[in-house]
Formats: sequence, C-alpha cells, structure tokens
Amino acid sequence: MKILVTGCAGFIGSNLCEYLLSQGHHVIGIDKDTSKEAKRRLENIEPILNMIMYWEDIMDIDNIMSSHSKPDIVYHLAAASDIMKSSTDMEWDMRENVIGTHKVLEYIRKSKIKKLVYSSTSVVQGEDVPKPTPESGIDFNPGSLYAASKCAAECYIRAYAKLYDIKSWIFRFGNVIGKNEHRGVIFDFIHKLRKNPNQLEILGNGRQIKSYIHVSDVVSAITSIPNNTDIKKVDVFNLGLKEWKSVTELANYVCDELGLKPDYTYTGGDRGWAGDIPVVMLETDKALATGWKPKLSCEEAIRQTVRELNE
Amino acid sequence: MKILVTGCAGFIGSNLCEYLLSQGHHVIGIDKDTSKEAKRRLENIEPILNMIMYWEDIMDIDNIMSSHSKPDIVYHLAAASDIMKSSTDMEWDMRENVIGTHKVLEYIRKSKIKKLVYSSTSVVQGEDVPKPTPESGIDFNPGSLYAASKCAAECYIRAYAKLYDIKSWIFRFGNVIGKNEHRGVIFDFIHKLRKNPNQLEILGNGRQIKSYIHVSDVVSAITSIPNNTDIKKVDVFNLGLKEWKSVTELANYVCDELGLKPDYTYTGGDRGWAGDIPVVMLETDKALATGWKPKLSCEEAIRQTVRELNE
Repeated sequence: MKILVTGCAGFIGSNLCEYLLSQGHHVIGIDKDTSKEAKRRLENIEPILNMIMYWEDIMDIDNIMSSHSKPDIVYHLAAASDIMKSSTDMEWDMRENVIGTHKVLEYIRKSKIKKLVYSSTSVVQGEDVPKPTPESGIDFNPGSLYAASKCAAECYIRAYAKLYDIKSWIFRFGNVIGKNEHRGVIFDFIHKLRKNPNQLEILGNGRQIKSYIHVSDVVSAITSIPNNTDIKKVDVFNLGLKEWKSVTELANYVCDELGLKPDYTYTGGDRGWAGDIPVVMLETDKALATGWKPKLSCEEAIRQTVRELNE
Repeated sequence: MKILVTGCAGFIGSNLCEYLLSQGHHVIGIDKDTSKEAKRRLENIEPILNMIMYWEDIMDIDNIMSSHSKPDIVYHLAAASDIMKSSTDMEWDMRENVIGTHKVLEYIRKSKIKKLVYSSTSVVQGEDVPKPTPESGIDFNPGSLYAASKCAAECYIRAYAKLYDIKSWIFRFGNVIGKNEHRGVIFDFIHKLRKNPNQLEILGNGRQIKSYIHVSDVVSAITSIPNNTDIKKVDVFNLGLKEWKSVTELANYVCDELGLKPDYTYTGGDRGWAGDIPVVMLETDKALATGWKPKLSCEEAIRQTVRELNE
C-alpha cells in the first residue's frame, strides 16, 4: 500500500513508519521538525528506501502531494502535543491541530482518499469521567487548550467522514511510551537521574494513576484495527492497557531497571502540572474486540522503554 | 451594566440589543455585516443612545475594545450560520466560528472579563440522538462543517472557562424565529408566497419535525438565566419549546395567517437540504428549572413571526 504519514518524524510517527516499511509498504512522510533528534528518529529506520520524506509543514500538503498519486490511507499524526506550551502560546494548538487537521482533511476530500487514521487523546473528555472511561456518551470537557484543539480536530474529522465518505479511525491514546519518545515522565526521570543518580524529583504527589502502553502495541493497533473493522464512517477507539500504575510505582521500575536507589522528593499536589489529569483509566474493550491484543504489560512496557531510552 | 454584543446586527443580536437597551444597559456592539438589511435591524431600535456601534470584524476585537474599559459580560453571537454555504466554502465556518471565537476568548482572557454567553446550536450533537435530546451525555456528532465549527467553539469555550475562571453560559438554540429573521423556513415561505400566492414549494417531504421558539423568548432566556444560575465554570442549556411542529403544519399556520390557500408541492426526501436534521426535539428541563418560561407557544410564535416579517 501507499501510505501518507504526517508527523512521521515524531515519537509515534517514527515507530509507525519503521513498522510500515518493514511490511513492504510505500510511505510518504511529512514532518516539519527538522531538529537533529527528529532526523535521527528516521535515520535509524531500515530499509528506508521505500520512504519519500518531506521536511515541510502540513499547511503545504497540497503542494507536497501534487506530484504524487493519492495514497490508499492517511495517518494524520502531525500535531502540537506539548500541553504546557499551550498555556503560554494560546494560538499554538489551534494553528497546528485545528487548522492543520482541516488542511489535511481538505487534501483528503479533494483527492478522494477514503481512509484516515487520526491520533487523538484521552484528554478530550477531561477528568470528571467514569473510570475506566469508555469512548462514547461522555461530553467533551477539555481542561487545556491542547485538549480543546484535539476535540475540535475530532469534530472536523467526524463531519468530513460523514459528508465525504472518508472512513476515519480515531484513536485516543493513553500514555504511550517507548523507543524515540522525547518527552514524558520516563524520559524526564532518566534525564534527572543522569544528572543526579541519588535523588529523583517527582512532579505532583506521585499518586497520579495512568496506564502506560508501549508504542509497539500502539503501532500494532493503529495498523491492524483499520484492517479488521468495517466501520460505517467514523469510529473511536481507546488504546491503553487494562492495568494502571501510579507515578511512584513507575519511578520504582525505572530506578530498578537502571540499578539505582535514589531518594524521592515530591513537588506535591494531586497533579504534575496545570492541565495534567491525575487519574487516566481508559476502557479498551472496543479495541480488544477487534482482535488486537497488546503484547507488553505495563511493567514490561516501562522496563523496555527504560532500556530503549538508555541506549 | 456594560455589555459587549458581537454579531449585534444579526437576527438574535439585534433583538438582544433592543431588549438590553430597553433595560437601561450600556451596549457596545460589533458586527461586520454592513448590508442595508443589517443596518436597518439596528436603526429600528429606540433608544439607541446607550449603544456604541462598531461595524468591524471580531478579528479586530482587541483594537476595537482598546478604548473601552472592560464590559461586565460578553454576548458572543457573531457567527457564520449559513449551513448551506459551509458545503461550498470549506474554510468559511472555521475562520468565522472557530478562529473568531478564539479571538473573542483571548480578548476576554486578557481583559479578565468573567462572564460570557455563547450562542451554540442543537446541531452539534447530530441527528442520531435520543429525543427529546438532553444537553449532556451525547457525543458531538456534527453532520456539517457548520456544526463542526460550533462544536469546536464550544470546546474552546469550555477550556477557557476552566483555565481562566470565565463563567460561560452556552445556549443551544433550536429553531429560533421572529422579528428581524432573514433566513429560515418562515422567511423562505413568505418570500415564495409573495412571488406566487397559489403555490408553495416545501423542501423535503414536509414531515421534518422541529420546535420553533420566538426570539423574544430566547432573549428572555439568555438574559435571565445568567442572572438566575450560579454555574461553576461552564454550563450548557438547550433553548426550545416542549412542543414540536412538522414543516407542513408550519406552512398551514403561515398560509392561514396570510389568508392564503396555496397548493403545496414537496421537493421530497426526509430532509430539506444536505446537513438538515429532520427531527429536532430538545430537552429543555434544565433551562425551565432556572425559572425561565417561554411566553409564546409554537403556534403563537409562528403566527407572530409571520406578522412581524410581513410588516
């Protein structure tokens, strides 16, 4: 298949491309992050021959794609995903996630592409939700401008899917961890422990509870579920594990894997930062019913991620 | 009170301004619709002395408001509301309703204004919903780009309300009718009957069922409910009546009020146009529980509107 991946040099994008290429697909990648780190995430992929890469902004998608016949499916992963940045640059998420997604949808509509996979997030529903949290029947309740932008993008995808017959799989990720991650709690812990192996500062009170899923299991979900489900127009799937760990438990695994025994200090409060959601437990029965099955447990995912990031 | 009304020259905006001025409030109005019809909607208001009018785009709200101290409350009614146009100009609603609302929210945040009233619509939930339809527990399911843009705006308002302590009343209107309406089914019928009093073309099969609420009852709701409710941060209220009429019944009232007996022809199909929702029945218990009560029945609202538009 010919597959367009936006945000292909990001954490999940780079892992997805590696998998797609290993399966013999042809990949067109778009990413505007031209940092050394982003380039390195793609350089490690073998075989890269079947990938055509554009280090460009998705705002230019029409131009970029004008020399290509239409792809069979679009993975739209390009997004601003820095929740903390969204509280200082108030236009950031709207530009990247709302207007950017609209640009991609317009390209899809005009090119008559019929399949779209979108990376959403569990934060669209906010924190005042039943747990585990199902995909449906819960109001959008964004607690950050990042979350608002993802809600908006989901809504535009739903409308385009229905109006223009674009089968659209919306995946709401919980906490994804693993190779190439360049942000997030494990990345943060390793960074801190390299500076000082005797002490680890934990944001919040350490009792925030989340499910950590390895990126390889996310990639297997977003590639297999669009093949295994016959959705009418648009459907939403939570992706996570059915087990949850506190941040302190996570710190224990990280330190154990690194052979360290630091003292913990806590910044206090029930959340790590403004906009953090202390308890995230996703109901994943819908994804599991498609036949998809994560391979790594929460603990295995955390330990493997520590090894991958520590390399 | 000092009140900012965006979209003040529109159908609901002009009725709202008339009421606010009659109550002795000071109104700052912004509207970019400089058509004769828009100006006429405001010119009829007496006393207009307490209103300062800007015929400008809300995109320039910072500039416009720079010479004013902050208003006590903002009524953000400015919006693209032409569903049919949203299927030909795909960027129209996003620019006007999403980016425009974000501009207004940014002005509110920076000015530390603490109260916002927003005019949303029942179409955010789409058509596959329980009837009557409550405000909560139903996924956003927009069937048009117009609906998607209103979903997106609602999500941004929710995020801003929570992040910056802006009490925000989101009102979802059903079919609002009455003085100054310049679009919609009654307007359309009168227009057609003036051309040919012997025949009336009805879009769809005439069995579309909706609740028609008079704009005076909408104005009383959106002015009284923000005074009578102590919401925490953001709350949503449906506005409509607890009775519903088919389009053919509505046509009967219109014709009767005009003293005409035309033959009806139907364009057929279960909806009037792409994006029309055939059955709209809003659950309005939440609004009624605040003490607000509509004065006109569906039939009275329709008959009064015919008289108002026919003047």
